[in-house]
Amino acid sequence: MDEFDVPESHPRYQSLLTRHRIEAGVERGITSRAGLVAQGRGEAFDYLLGEETLPSAADAARAAAAHFLLADHPVVSVNGNAAALVPDELVALADATGADLEVNLFHRTDERVAAIADVLREHGATDVKGETADARIPDLDHERGKVATDGIADADVVLVPLEDGDRAAALSELGKTEIVIDLNPLSRSAAVADVPIVDNIVRAVPNVTAHARTLTGTSEAELRAIVDAFDPDAARAAAESAIRDGQLD
Amino acid sequence: MDEFDVPESHPRYQSLLTRHRIEAGVERGITSRAGLVAQGRGEAFDYLLGEETLPSAADAARAAAAHFLLADHPVVSVNGNAAALVPDELVALADATGADLEVNLFHRTDERVAAIADVLREHGATDVKGETADARIPDLDHERGKVATDGIADADVVLVPLEDGDRAAALSELGKTEIVIDLNPLSRSAAVADVPIVDNIVRAVPNVTAHARTLTGTSEAELRAIVDAFDPDAARAAAESAIRDGQLD
Repeated sequence: MDEFDVPESHPRYQSLLTRHRIEAGVERGITSRAGLVAQGRGEAFDYLLGEETLPSAADAARAAAAHFLLADHPVVSVNGNAAALVPDELVALADATGADLEVNLFHRTDERVAAIADVLREHGATDVKGETADARIPDLDHERGKVATDGIADADVVLVPLEDGDRAAALSELGKTEIVIDLNPLSRSAAVADVPIVDNIVRAVPNVTAHARTLTGTSEAELRAIVDAFDPDAARAAAESAIRDGQLD
Repeated sequence: MDEFDVPESHPRYQSLLTRHRIEAGVERGITSRAGLVAQGRGEAFDYLLGEETLPSAADAARAAAAHFLLADHPVVSVNGNAAALVPDELVALADATGADLEVNLFHRTDERVAAIADVLREHGATDVKGETADARIPDLDHERGKVATDGIADADVVLVPLEDGDRAAALSELGKTEIVIDLNPLSRSAAVADVPIVDNIVRAVPNVTAHARTLTGTSEAELRAIVDAFDPDAARAAAESAIRDGQLD
């Protein structure tokens, strides 16, 4: 991604950088065709949200950080778009929270899993799960249900950025605390999440990490209070309102 | 595209068919990566619009048909996504209105132009322009400004589905009557259009054709009255309202 030379002062810098990273992800074989279409859907929702983090999304990022710090075994699920867009940021989140990184794909092939794991290792990850995916999520067909025994299968808190609705619902059914990053406040993934972060992944992941660093050392009672105060329905409603009343007036 | 075997009764039939056609377009080399991202943006807006033709979009399709019938030389600009999604429908529109079809690409390569022209001919087009693009739209850099001398350069009415904002603006500057199909009512393409049809191309193109057939034989005065009664700002505002108040309540 070294060839990206648009100055940071460019008004569309972030958007152009994001597009560039997705293109580079295609070159590396980690972003699929479905990933490109998903990127476009995300762009449209982000545009309608004003391309900024809503206060409700900042609250969600803080609640997510508290969940991570309370967890026995938090896992960050990584797909092709996440690895293409925020590899450094995912590694930093795992470092700040002690979470595992697991490559987990809707359109799973061993080649793509390996390529994504390589990208994460290049960006500093030391232990990437998911290349051996020997456990399964019930209710999903074979390829789509594969997860790591010592990763998502064992996790109590899972962050799934940019996840498919069926898989988000199946994880939720398993009783895991589920944190979803999704720009569509009306998506099924956002609806089933304990913590829906309705925000662009390029802003959301660093926000969760920053909150985790700030909250490190906070008492369990205080973390629990943050978690309990978060209302997922209110967060989704606030994002819907931003789409309704924000850019469109 | 023969292998698509989802029954029409499937609740997501149209959406799945559209996705299938875009995938097939990638296989044929006519849909670009940028085209896949654009498809995703369109999906998000269509979702927010309720995936149906708004009354204002139906009015816009009728005004577009009247413009076609009044024109001396109407031209339908065809890019990769348009050819992938509605090849039969574009040929039918050209037949119903006497319009020319011109392949015109933002990311132009001779190979993609030829592949798209082939698709249109396979679907019954007899005269496809754009393979020799020897005229230029001023204000656009070389590759992006190429148009056919006997096509868009000579046209008085141009339909540009799914067009980039810069190019839509440049065509408008040339004084041509511009009809745009774009699911984002706030896009620059929609803003500069004489007739913005804020609708999915798979619904919009057949709608324009149906109106053209109905209006064939109508007097010039009556066609002129239809054109004059159409208010592009009101049409865009109605689409914005649908996004605000429609699916999101």
